[in-house]
Amino acid sequence: MSIRIGILGYGNLGRGVECAVKQNPDMELVAVFTRREPQTVSILTESASVCHVSEAAAWKDKIDVLILCGGSATDLPEQTPAYAKLFNVVDSFDTHANIPKHFDAVDAVAKESGKTGIISVGWDPGMFSLNRMYASAILPGGKDYTFWGKGVSQGHSDAIRRIEGVKNAKQYTIPVEATLEAVREGKNPELSTREKHTRECFVVLEEGADAAKVEQEIKTMPNYFADYDTTVHFISEEELIRDHGGIPHGGFVLRSGKTGWEEENSHLIEYSLKLDSNPEFTSSVIIAYARAAYRLNKEGQAGAKTVFDIPPAYLSAKSGEELRAAML
Amino acid sequence: MSIRIGILGYGNLGRGVECAVKQNPDMELVAVFTRREPQTVSILTESASVCHVSEAAAWKDKIDVLILCGGSATDLPEQTPAYAKLFNVVDSFDTHANIPKHFDAVDAVAKESGKTGIISVGWDPGMFSLNRMYASAILPGGKDYTFWGKGVSQGHSDAIRRIEGVKNAKQYTIPVEATLEAVREGKNPELSTREKHTRECFVVLEEGADAAKVEQEIKTMPNYFADYDTTVHFISEEELIRDHGGIPHGGFVLRSGKTGWEEENSHLIEYSLKLDSNPEFTSSVIIAYARAAYRLNKEGQAGAKTVFDIPPAYLSAKSGEELRAAML
Repeated sequence: MSIRIGILGYGNLGRGVECAVKQNPDMELVAVFTRREPQTVSILTESASVCHVSEAAAWKDKIDVLILCGGSATDLPEQTPAYAKLFNVVDSFDTHANIPKHFDAVDAVAKESGKTGIISVGWDPGMFSLNRMYASAILPGGKDYTFWGKGVSQGHSDAIRRIEGVKNAKQYTIPVEATLEAVREGKNPELSTREKHTRECFVVLEEGADAAKVEQEIKTMPNYFADYDTTVHFISEEELIRDHGGIPHGGFVLRSGKTGWEEENSHLIEYSLKLDSNPEFTSSVIIAYARAAYRLNKEGQAGAKTVFDIPPAYLSAKSGEELRAAML
Repeated sequence: MSIRIGILGYGNLGRGVECAVKQNPDMELVAVFTRREPQTVSILTESASVCHVSEAAAWKDKIDVLILCGGSATDLPEQTPAYAKLFNVVDSFDTHANIPKHFDAVDAVAKESGKTGIISVGWDPGMFSLNRMYASAILPGGKDYTFWGKGVSQGHSDAIRRIEGVKNAKQYTIPVEATLEAVREGKNPELSTREKHTRECFVVLEEGADAAKVEQEIKTMPNYFADYDTTVHFISEEELIRDHGGIPHGGFVLRSGKTGWEEENSHLIEYSLKLDSNPEFTSSVIIAYARAAYRLNKEGQAGAKTVFDIPPAYLSAKSGEELRAAML
């Protein structure tokens, strides 16, 4: 009997979840819910239904875990608590500062409904958070660092696209290699924003736009670019599509710390990801946690959870015996 | 009220645990148990007692978690089940093939006594196992690789020391850089033993020993060296002490896998450790899991556990709220 998965929201993340389900034989995609006209949405899984989001409640007993694939700005703060009334849910809420509030909102509803809701699943928040937490528990006398990239930042690409005269744009966040090396050498540097990452922008201009003005506007944009060393390349739309069509990402979590009676020994823990597709990797993490949500709920563990709360074995299709024999 | 820690066995690992306790303000070392004459053992923590191992039972209600620091060959298979009758215990049992049997032995006793026993804690088994498991759950369509080193292998150093004419020796296990790179590039190679690691030996000869014969004996030793490219350096005892006195280690766990409807996207997950002191890092992991053992037992979760069974948050001195606000 497979774990029956539903997807709410069929963008990059929703499609990624669909692909991840296909790789896990203990799971089955049963329905995709969309705000669009269902007839206009074509999915890859022949056996699954496409339904309007307004029909979701009717699937209450036909779905074991509903994956919420909306955005963190406006969708998930509404959707995750709302659907936790009816379903076990997993989301990838990634507005770090609002996680405590989101957790409390989901927890209250899910405890009431007896459902399990796992929030903020993916790689950051998600696997990066886990690695920050494990490393800091192991090396309390240490310091941790997170670097992102090389990868596409959707938010920064959007910010460039909003500039007058810009037709299209793609922005890459790139960790500064020399800084990464200094961290690896255990120097525990104090780092400014500029020292950690650079930003590289590929911009397609509207006809007649003023390149110098656009470049100036990008480089001085507060929060997004002003505090970084930023490079701007102007390219054609064809080049953008040909060379920058992917959504790669990745990054590094490092912790260096000391041990010994006089803290005489140094240690470095490093976790890194190199991802061809940010949404597909995020989806793969989500699907592993969907398995955990299903199991936790079977055990009666209702309420909101994060990656910190979940025993690693709950993510695996293998039994405890198999894991101990093959992976420990 | 601190978590009261006991140490059984005061070698490199026991001393490492003592140092790790010092770095964790919510813990306190109360006693060290030794098979030697207690008067002959001097420890670093002034407030802790040194007792003969035969007195351990009397400390039943004065210790929250007993850390078993014996060897995996003969000590732990006896000690962990025996002491799980009286104490919550953590061990670093690392004979991978015997983990299932050891788990069952500890589980039976601990369930009966109502204690919690966490076995096979450290970095491999331990943090490396966790990373193999998380990565394989996230990327089921993939392949994982573990490389060890550069670091000192105690077992291989001992094997060299047993050769006639050898006074002292230190052996380093070194991952083959080109192979690591091939794995990072997602080539998913099938690898022979020789392709993964090389072995470098620093040997001090007895006076009058035949260097060529010793080198030949090392390089052809079955299991230990015959399947590897091995380099042997003859050095003086002074050089050995001066340049090879440490116990560094480390390694890499990598998993590369594909996602996408046609598995068109590649991903690489890499976890690595660079450790100045193998026993002190192992001890630091053990102490984080001692905190988990204490908490699990307070909740009534008796029996044997491994790193796979334990929610990450149980390792941290921080509360769930603090972790969600600061680390997620």
